[in-house]
Amino acid sequence: MMAAVKACNILITGANRGLGLEIVKQLLEDSSQKRHIFATCRDPDGPKSEALRELAKKHPSVITIIRLDADDPSSVKESAKKVGSLLGKSGLNLLVNNAAIALTGSIQTSSVEDMKNTFNTNVIGPLLVIKEYLPYLQAAAKASGIPGMSCNKAAVINISTLWGSMTRMPSVYTQFPVLPYCVSKAGFNMLTVLAAEEFKADEILCMALHPGWVKTDMGGEKAPLESKDSVEGMLRVIGSLTEKHHGGFLDYTGETMPW
Amino acid sequence: MMAAVKACNILITGANRGLGLEIVKQLLEDSSQKRHIFATCRDPDGPKSEALRELAKKHPSVITIIRLDADDPSSVKESAKKVGSLLGKSGLNLLVNNAAIALTGSIQTSSVEDMKNTFNTNVIGPLLVIKEYLPYLQAAAKASGIPGMSCNKAAVINISTLWGSMTRMPSVYTQFPVLPYCVSKAGFNMLTVLAAEEFKADEILCMALHPGWVKTDMGGEKAPLESKDSVEGMLRVIGSLTEKHHGGFLDYTGETMPW
Ligand SMILES: NC(=O)c1ccc[n+]([C@@H]2O[C@H](COP(=O)([O-])OP(=O)(O)OC[C@H]3O[C@@H](n4cnc5c(N)ncnc54)[C@H](OP(=O)(O)O)[C@@H]3O)[C@@H](O)[C@H]2O)c1
Ligand SMILES: NC(=O)c1ccc[n+]([C@@H]2O[C@H](COP(=O)([O-])OP(=O)(O)OC[C@H]3O[C@@H](n4cnc5c(N)ncnc54)[C@H](OP(=O)(O)O)[C@@H]3O)[C@@H](O)[C@H]2O)c1
Repeated sequence: MMAAVKACNILITGANRGLGLEIVKQLLEDSSQKRHIFATCRDPDGPKSEALRELAKKHPSVITIIRLDADDPSSVKESAKKVGSLLGKSGLNLLVNNAAIALTGSIQTSSVEDMKNTFNTNVIGPLLVIKEYLPYLQAAAKASGIPGMSCNKAAVINISTLWGSMTRMPSVYTQFPVLPYCVSKAGFNMLTVLAAEEFKADEILCMALHPGWVKTDMGGEKAPLESKDSVEGMLRVIGSLTEKHHGGFLDYTGETMPW
Repeated sequence: MMAAVKACNILITGANRGLGLEIVKQLLEDSSQKRHIFATCRDPDGPKSEALRELAKKHPSVITIIRLDADDPSSVKESAKKVGSLLGKSGLNLLVNNAAIALTGSIQTSSVEDMKNTFNTNVIGPLLVIKEYLPYLQAAAKASGIPGMSCNKAAVINISTLWGSMTRMPSVYTQFPVLPYCVSKAGFNMLTVLAAEEFKADEILCMALHPGWVKTDMGGEKAPLESKDSVEGMLRVIGSLTEKHHGGFLDYTGETMPW
């Protein structure tokens, strides 16, 4: 039998387009699970969130759209308050840190502003999200009664990338000079490792997941993978995670990635 | 015979105390080499630079103190102009990115400001330094006439840390909850890897070096190593580097560090 995500309460950042939106879609398709999806995005009423709004209209009992701008600490705080009030005692089972920006640049061309903005969105944003939602993850871990770790109990999945791998990056850098992005994602991987260390006692699973190179606004037209296939793979991996993967780094096929 | 640093023109950031100052001292002791040391610090006239000023007074033909604040892009630019005007055609052989701050914090306690400040000093600062000094490193590489890579030709040594290693960090994190520092140094390691990739064609060596845990203001009293021993080890390693170490990560004993 294929591993499936059985988590009841799920929150996704950057859920209005790209991989985030595809995750919401595929979670909806699996009607065997009773769940609630908190689909967060930074501009719920804007034009880039139209597809998500349509989806929420069709599934009002499953999807709640919540405003969450990773660059704005107060919006992260407010979102957590709102989600907390809706969650109840069962807590938050699965938090997917998916929102990110990918600014290009080399040593010569990366501006201070680009470095700062990328770090803010891709590292400080997820740090704040993890911090504000931690009480709900802890509640879910306690409420579950199941020993060990799994995404159905309580988990933080950080969507990372091969571009954050010191080992793998050299071979692709000349083709993709995205220095601010790479540096931020390496920092994000460290955040994942440290969060995993902190969450051990609470039995909240935390790991980094590379979606592959995917045709989205970020991945571009040349990417070999469709969102559908990447997300199918990622959900399969997420559904199969155990404490063995805690603090680890996998790709969408389940292969271990080197740091 | 022991490997020695023969580089003629050397620049060090954060040279007024701690490991940076000890590097200047040990380079001075080795009188077998003719060299010039650009000892940079953010406050040359301040009380924390007194020891460096004393040293420069004793060795006026060897040491030039230059103001360089890693947090201030315009000071990095100005320092490069000044150093460039003094260097002449032989260029800059060795650039040591040593300046850094280590702010403590966990997921719960790391503030947005601490995350930003640490990233600015430890990652954006070195990026700007590398960018502004690159023309002088290129000049040195061209002027040398020696094939291959070495610190005597043209090299960037980034002082990194075990605390930036995703592989090694989990085992020490509970003892040292320094999340902003760890995240910044992981990003700094990525910067090293990408700079190495960019500098291949110019034959400018670039690598990351862990000094060990050392008794300085940063390392604290409990550290097992004296600055003297750490810097002796680091200079030995720096002196022995070849293209084999390009883009790599070593500690002060020459052991390879995992990312
Ligand atoms: N596509 C690939 O090939 C690839 C490869 C490796 C890793 N990844 C990773 O996969 C994740 C999703 O990427 P994607 O391809 O789906 O990218 P995408 O199509 O560009 O979508 C990015 C998403 O992040 C959101 N976002 C950006 N900044 C935000 C902020 N400050 N606050 C809240 N949301 C923000 C965007 O919202 P707006 O609509 O408001 O801009 C959008 O929903 C990212 O973490 C990325 O690094 C992608
Ligand atoms: N000590 C250890 O155990 C240890 C272990 C691993 C790695 N390291 C690394 O080794 C390097 C040196 O550390 P250390 O132990 O010598 O630390 P330290 O004693 O705290 O000295 C830090 C140095 O960096 C300078 N600095 C800080 N912010 C700066 C800025 N914005 N612009 C310019 N200079 C700045 C300081 O200058 P001010 O006097 O003006 O503050 C000082 O000269 C660092 O990269 C550190 O991460 C140290």
